Amino acid sequence: MAEPLRVGVAGLGTVGASVLRLLDRNAASLAARCGRPVVVTAVSARDRTRDRGVDITRYEWFDDPVALARAPGVDCVVELMGGSDGPAKAVVEAALAAGRPVVTANKALLARHGAALARLAEERGASIGFEAAVAGGIPIVKALRETLAGNAVHRVSGILNGTCNYILSRMELEGLSFDAVLADAQKLGYAEADPTFDVGGFDTAHKLAILTSLAFGTEIDADAIHVEGISAITPLDLKMADDLGYRIKLLGVAERTPTGIEQRVHPTMTPKSWPIAQVMGVTNAVNVMAEPVGELTLVGPGAGGDATASSVLADLVDVARGLQVSPFGQRAETLEAAERLPMQRHEGGYYVRLSVADRPGAAAAIATRMAERQISLESIVQRRSGPRPTDTSGRSGEPVPVVLITYATTETAIRSAIDAMLADGYVSEPPQVIRIERA
Amino acid sequence: MAEPLRVGVAGLGTVGASVLRLLDRNAASLAARCGRPVVVTAVSARDRTRDRGVDITRYEWFDDPVALARAPGVDCVVELMGGSDGPAKAVVEAALAAGRPVVTANKALLARHGAALARLAEERGASIGFEAAVAGGIPIVKALRETLAGNAVHRVSGILNGTCNYILSRMELEGLSFDAVLADAQKLGYAEADPTFDVGGFDTAHKLAILTSLAFGTEIDADAIHVEGISAITPLDLKMADDLGYRIKLLGVAERTPTGIEQRVHPTMTPKSWPIAQVMGVTNAVNVMAEPVGELTLVGPGAGGDATASSVLADLVDVARGLQVSPFGQRAETLEAAERLPMQRHEGGYYVRLSVADRPGAAAAIATRMAERQISLESIVQRRSGPRPTDTSGRSGEPVPVVLITYATTETAIRSAIDAMLADGYVSEPPQVIRIERA
Repeated sequence: MAEPLRVGVAGLGTVGASVLRLLDRNAASLAARCGRPVVVTAVSARDRTRDRGVDITRYEWFDDPVALARAPGVDCVVELMGGSDGPAKAVVEAALAAGRPVVTANKALLARHGAALARLAEERGASIGFEAAVAGGIPIVKALRETLAGNAVHRVSGILNGTCNYILSRMELEGLSFDAVLADAQKLGYAEADPTFDVGGFDTAHKLAILTSLAFGTEIDADAIHVEGISAITPLDLKMADDLGYRIKLLGVAERTPTGIEQRVHPTMTPKSWPIAQVMGVTNAVNVMAEPVGELTLVGPGAGGDATASSVLADLVDVARGLQVSPFGQRAETLEAAERLPMQRHEGGYYVRLSVADRPGAAAAIATRMAERQISLESIVQRRSGPRPTDTSGRSGEPVPVVLITYATTETAIRSAIDAMLADGYVSEPPQVIRIERA
Repeated sequence: MAEPLRVGVAGLGTVGASVLRLLDRNAASLAARCGRPVVVTAVSARDRTRDRGVDITRYEWFDDPVALARAPGVDCVVELMGGSDGPAKAVVEAALAAGRPVVTANKALLARHGAALARLAEERGASIGFEAAVAGGIPIVKALRETLAGNAVHRVSGILNGTCNYILSRMELEGLSFDAVLADAQKLGYAEADPTFDVGGFDTAHKLAILTSLAFGTEIDADAIHVEGISAITPLDLKMADDLGYRIKLLGVAERTPTGIEQRVHPTMTPKSWPIAQVMGVTNAVNVMAEPVGELTLVGPGAGGDATASSVLADLVDVARGLQVSPFGQRAETLEAAERLPMQRHEGGYYVRLSVADRPGAAAAIATRMAERQISLESIVQRRSGPRPTDTSGRSGEPVPVVLITYATTETAIRSAIDAMLADGYVSEPPQVIRIERA
């Protein structure tokens, strides 16, 4: 059997500890499958003494993770420290500069510096494995980089943040408000004390930036992404979506359109028959529409130490087997600059929920404002009384919720129609606008 | 840019023609992603003159596909002729003997000769890519061979035959009989004139044999698989399943149990909340339960020229990039012999539908026969009158359908209880027995 692959692990949080444990437990099968043992030789973390449930005294200890990255007894560096700059970046750069393959779960680092790191890796003949950086245990990086390399991707879209999907699922199933479910999710450990990064859509955006680059051969550019979070979604929206045959999901979507490659993160009406709409709770899912394969959907755990560690192991197996592909599937210098398409240019269907004054002429005025902009309506639903108490007093003069589902139109047309409706005075508060994604 | 990869294609049916077309159409992006062009140089088929919608005069023609496999201008051989023996086997052996990588969609060949071909490939330093042989465009071969190489698989199960899933979906949604849907499927081209290979479960078994080997490191052994088809499933079973929260799917299941690795193909009650239960029509899906990743589900097109060609391209990309893994994920001589577990040893839940005489003592007799064998019942449903006319006349003395859902028990216990019930004389025809798979 060939020489072992000697691994240095920088960062021993939940994922790092899980990686150490799994490399131990699965040592025999890994050696059989890789044709060589995969062994940890060095570790680095902030605190040497913390109890992680694994014995780290067997490994060479480094206070300085950059020193680990350059240490003579290390062939491959696993970076699990996190952070888009600072020590994590220094470790990855040091390892690549030394020609050593890197495996990382660090989506923030890649979203910000992915193209530059890929160039460095290719200069030095090293690889960067980052299956763990997107959608936890789902092998979407390998699917885009390898399986679909002979395809032309039209759209990649996904539920990439388990916290948001958990919140939306419980809001829908239990009829609860965003705030109520968020508070409970924080108690249960499914949401952070400061949930902004998750519920604001920013975590999804980091992951989408990576998927876009892999799918379309563009340089990573997280700033090109239009980002909206889920905090404005109400139980009424989820109920209306349900009645109309949709579920609301926070999706990251990258799509080739006639004007360029759109990248957007926003709450999305997804048809219930679409596999991605059926994914509930913390589970993640990624859907790819590509030519010639058609539609592929991958569903699995999006977070958690073990699921993420599984993807780290997958990348380590590739390294041990000597399988090496350019980090983004083609040489970094051939990646095209990402486009920054303004959201106004987006074309698609829309869900618009209006709070409409209950007096004569309102419906006609709304219909006129849409027609003036050539917006065709697939359906109009007015809920004067319904199973939920919000705005459904039934008294004349009180505003009633009206939902419009449009056929494909432009964001500009929708926004302009809404402005006109607000000026008309029949619509009493800023409408809820949710984009529709069709399978 | 490096030397082109020169590909010889043996077999120019729907998939072969699609491969030629796609290699042309995606030539530029393939070259960018592989770092070298991928070009067809030679082809072979039964009929040189047939119109395939692609110009094959550009390629060197071989009447004899074995000569193509050995031709000097060919680096890699794509075998799309089909058949478990004869010319297809000769072509693959000739290519491997010459140290040339092979890409094939031939599940029958692999199910019968996979282990021997893998040994030959490894002796000669060649690879065998067969992503296209299982579940069409779904990248399950790569997922098991590479992504999950650091995991321990507990169970792999899947909807691996689109014809069966189409028939069961329409039977469920439209309340039609197996024969009626089959006849329609034949008219629409979703089922063959002789449908036995599909509806009898044998196609699923070939694919399952390959998945088992990849998942558990065992030698392929299609004869070790217990196979049942879908022709005995009735609309009443689908209706009862629906009422009880299940869907009936033809699954191929390979599972590590305390007694060994079970391989079985049979109609299966799947909980509706399970992603695999939600897959309707000709679509395929594969579900993997593994440690540490948890549960992964891959959904996509299971057949068709383009989806299958997509997987052929994926394997060609690996060859062009120089990525090479043992065909079954570890050296063939380390694969263990597959076990042949008799189905009697299977443990799990059961759906048993009985046709029971409508007279006093019947229920007690049935309950006694189950209890004698320590079989616990999760639910009992008696349908004296229901939405479907079958056996629901309501007249006393006529048999009525009774459905039992059991907790985990053994196949032996169930069969023995049924024999005893039949001997008691309360049960009027052979019961329907469907195994339950839980997520």
